[in-house]
Amino acid sequence: MITLTLVGIGSGNPQHLTLQAIEALNSADLILIPRKGKGKDDLAGLRRDICTQVLRDPAPRLHEFDLPVRDPNTPDYRQRVDDWHDAIATIWQREIVAQLPKGGNVAFLVWGDPSLYDSTLRIAERLKSQMALNVQVVPGITAIQALTAGHAIPLNDIGAPVVITTGRQLRDNGWPTGADTVVVMLDAGGAFETLDPVGIDIWWTAYAGMENEICLHGPLSEVGPQIVTRRAEARADHGWIMDIYLMRRA
Amino acid sequence: MITLTLVGIGSGNPQHLTLQAIEALNSADLILIPRKGKGKDDLAGLRRDICTQVLRDPAPRLHEFDLPVRDPNTPDYRQRVDDWHDAIATIWQREIVAQLPKGGNVAFLVWGDPSLYDSTLRIAERLKSQMALNVQVVPGITAIQALTAGHAIPLNDIGAPVVITTGRQLRDNGWPTGADTVVVMLDAGGAFETLDPVGIDIWWTAYAGMENEICLHGPLSEVGPQIVTRRAEARADHGWIMDIYLMRRA
Ligand SMILES: C[S@@+](CC[C@H](N)C(=O)[O-])C[C@H]1O[C@@H](n2cnc3c(N)ncnc32)[C@H](O)[C@@H]1O
Ligand SMILES: C[S@@+](CC[C@H](N)C(=O)[O-])C[C@H]1O[C@@H](n2cnc3c(N)ncnc32)[C@H](O)[C@@H]1O
Repeated sequence: MITLTLVGIGSGNPQHLTLQAIEALNSADLILIPRKGKGKDDLAGLRRDICTQVLRDPAPRLHEFDLPVRDPNTPDYRQRVDDWHDAIATIWQREIVAQLPKGGNVAFLVWGDPSLYDSTLRIAERLKSQMALNVQVVPGITAIQALTAGHAIPLNDIGAPVVITTGRQLRDNGWPTGADTVVVMLDAGGAFETLDPVGIDIWWTAYAGMENEICLHGPLSEVGPQIVTRRAEARADHGWIMDIYLMRRA
Repeated sequence: MITLTLVGIGSGNPQHLTLQAIEALNSADLILIPRKGKGKDDLAGLRRDICTQVLRDPAPRLHEFDLPVRDPNTPDYRQRVDDWHDAIATIWQREIVAQLPKGGNVAFLVWGDPSLYDSTLRIAERLKSQMALNVQVVPGITAIQALTAGHAIPLNDIGAPVVITTGRQLRDNGWPTGADTVVVMLDAGGAFETLDPVGIDIWWTAYAGMENEICLHGPLSEVGPQIVTRRAEARADHGWIMDIYLMRRA
């Protein structure tokens, strides 16, 4: 029997780690670390650093493996993602069985919180159909919390709803109905430019919680164009970017 | 000059504490602990326990003080809340000035994350207009993360939006438009009963992350009535309840 623990590690600041996450990592027999390949986000390095910092002797075994890439030839987006998840699940199973033939505890470090725009839980679900598996989740600080903490702002207006959505949704469907606060994640760039900026304030953060964190905020009409410029510069400087923003309507 | 650090402590499990939260508490000169008074949620005790567990020698001073109550004679809800926040800000200022006449670092433990349905940031804003104050926020694990971790479920469907709302909003406005996943907090009880349950699944947790955590899930039509019963029993047993739920439409 395998227990798979998905451990939320927070959003880039190693100090986001919770005591529960540290215990979960230490009580694993095996920690799986996926590698995305050169030129992709450097998260394998960050995962390794976190393990070095918090693992006590005798430490669990760390095992790195290469992730497959999505097949760009599959035209349908959902199908492409599904196939990719299948491929990852197959690799996980192979690695787990090879490393822990008699069963045991496997931990997997997940960026932010495992519940939020992350595929790990879906991959674990697929694994369940292939092997006897018990899945546990250790919550982590999300990029949303890192965003609001960096700006020291509330997420919601008093008693009011909040929509969490993606750049693609915002582009395709405009401002979500029924809420005056929107958090946008997974924006490949400037989805807010598709909105009429009148009456909207924005709080934007790139690399939240990290050393090179950038925070900008103000009326969307003024700050929007600044964000577009800063984002392009930062992306060119670092080779990659992760950013998130909150918008509120008056 | 005063630095006020609002420290998210997670949602009931002391192991939710992050390394950053532990450092923030230890580097404070003063930790303020509010008391709500007998028969209210016993959070002063939990805050004290957390401090005992993580503070190193020489520990910051802990200072407890009594919170005012909302004036039930103020008819307007928003006005009542505003007046109450004003009254709390006045007490904070008095306590801070009395305890740290020469300035310093004050820490305040906030349930979950300080950004989410919590008044502490708004009270800190009021304080800013009364004294020289620098406000910092340390993010914490929210009840939303504790809910999804306990059920080991994703918050969102792939690439899809999520609405976070309150029991009152759900009651008054029904299922929010534009999202198939809704998280409901601050429900005084059974706001989901106002919905047509067909096609809706619910994941409900009371006392998330705590010893007495209760998790129920399934089709709303079946599980809804069970939740109402369990909630009433648990509330009677413990004298108080905190619960949260996620609903998804097919
Ligand atoms: C695949 S999702 C993973 C989210 C993660 N599970 C969480 O809990 O925050 C990646 C998106 O999260 C946001 N994000 C994650 N970490 C971030 C960071 N440190 N700074 C800014 N945005 C971040 C960005 O919007 C990014 O496109
Ligand atoms: C005033 S709000 C504070 C939320 C908090 N700041 C957070 O980040 O989760 C209180 C509401 O949060 C939810 N909540 C907080 N802690 C909880 C817990 N341990 N179990 C279930 N619900 C909880 C409930 O919906 C409750 O009505």
